[in-house]
Amino acid sequence: MEESAPRSRRITFGCLVGASQVVGLASVVLTAVWMGHYHGGFAWDGTAKEFNVHPLCMVLGLIFLQGDAILVYRVFQNEPKKVVKVLHGIIHLLALIISIVGMVAVFDFHRTYGIPDMYSLHSWCGMVTLVIFCLQWVLGLLFFLFPVVSSQLRALYLPIHVFSGLVLLVLAIGSSLLGIVEKLLFSIMSTYSKRVPEGILANVLGILLVCFGVLMCYLISKEEYKRPPNPEEESLSIHFKSLTEGSPTSP
Amino acid sequence: MEESAPRSRRITFGCLVGASQVVGLASVVLTAVWMGHYHGGFAWDGTAKEFNVHPLCMVLGLIFLQGDAILVYRVFQNEPKKVVKVLHGIIHLLALIISIVGMVAVFDFHRTYGIPDMYSLHSWCGMVTLVIFCLQWVLGLLFFLFPVVSSQLRALYLPIHVFSGLVLLVLAIGSSLLGIVEKLLFSIMSTYSKRVPEGILANVLGILLVCFGVLMCYLISKEEYKRPPNPEEESLSIHFKSLTEGSPTSP
Repeated sequence: MEESAPRSRRITFGCLVGASQVVGLASVVLTAVWMGHYHGGFAWDGTAKEFNVHPLCMVLGLIFLQGDAILVYRVFQNEPKKVVKVLHGIIHLLALIISIVGMVAVFDFHRTYGIPDMYSLHSWCGMVTLVIFCLQWVLGLLFFLFPVVSSQLRALYLPIHVFSGLVLLVLAIGSSLLGIVEKLLFSIMSTYSKRVPEGILANVLGILLVCFGVLMCYLISKEEYKRPPNPEEESLSIHFKSLTEGSPTSP
Repeated sequence: MEESAPRSRRITFGCLVGASQVVGLASVVLTAVWMGHYHGGFAWDGTAKEFNVHPLCMVLGLIFLQGDAILVYRVFQNEPKKVVKVLHGIIHLLALIISIVGMVAVFDFHRTYGIPDMYSLHSWCGMVTLVIFCLQWVLGLLFFLFPVVSSQLRALYLPIHVFSGLVLLVLAIGSSLLGIVEKLLFSIMSTYSKRVPEGILANVLGILLVCFGVLMCYLISKEEYKRPPNPEEESLSIHFKSLTEGSPTSP
């Protein structure tokens, strides 16, 4: 946060970021515990143990890391923008790779047991999310990290990139909640209504993911937590502007 | 939209509002068709026909009407703020009543068949949404429609009210998607993976609800679609300010 920001605002921001990290990490741990303790753990052999890799990768990659990748602009306000931009791209790349591994795991598992792919609402929402996520990453690379387009196009795309980022995070959380309900009804339908520990654990995981989403949306959309303009970066922008004959913009 | 806004912006805004209404109404119709055609229609007799009232009321009240209630500030920009505020409150009240009817329907149905209440992730998310929705409506009434608190408190609460409104809409959509998956797995689990018409229809309904949410969030969060300040209202505000010794604010 900038030096002039009131102390109380910085403390609130710090507490909210801390809470988001605790909730996010707790979600990842709870997913691992659910799959590890109740469903036999993890393997890469086409069986149900390979399926278990899917929820863990999606919660870690498409939710926790994607959220943190967006948050870096707010957290590292005093670091050079170029550095933060690279960090934003790298965490997103990591999120993308982990998500693709998670997606491959479920397709592998389906192939082993002859289960049809892409018939459920969870799979439709999840696939839409991952495809737009890939597209968003490639466009982010081309527009902002190694800009190959004009600054006018960049300025036009920036609000769409920011809005899509938040939509993608919410979509990822929504898709995961659908996955939780599917998994519960496929595995403990007869006992779920008796409030068995596995059902409660998975429900709590769902609520934690919702809390993570709300915290992230609040931190990302609140105007006063935005990165303040940096005079040095502004002057660089003006220099860059004279080279490209436009107004350069980056997320 | 204000007179000076570029024509293209007004056209885009109109098209997006139109699209949101088409998608929203299509969601309501599809829910009615799903429950009417595949699950025997509607009644108020404690049976599955009473359950069918639940999804219809939630999609109509907690999603479509709630979205439109938020949208009125953007659509009726040239109407007096007081009128728009009353309209915002009335549509929300209608949404609240319809949602409570929908909630009663599912509890009635559970009582008839001895099904436990509040054990699923869908019920947890749905109940949290409805409780916060009620709270939000009452606070909105006390803070903005018949203000009984100081203008400082109003100003403090306004951004929370606006943020909570969007979160509530997204939560309502998320809860409905969970409900769709639950209903599908409870009724057509053995044929869902064969892509039967009921499964496809319910999946399409889910995707339409997501589209409605994305359109609404875009229309509501985009700065340039915000209601422009009205000089007459401003002067009224100043008069009001002198009476209450603070800066009056309303959503």
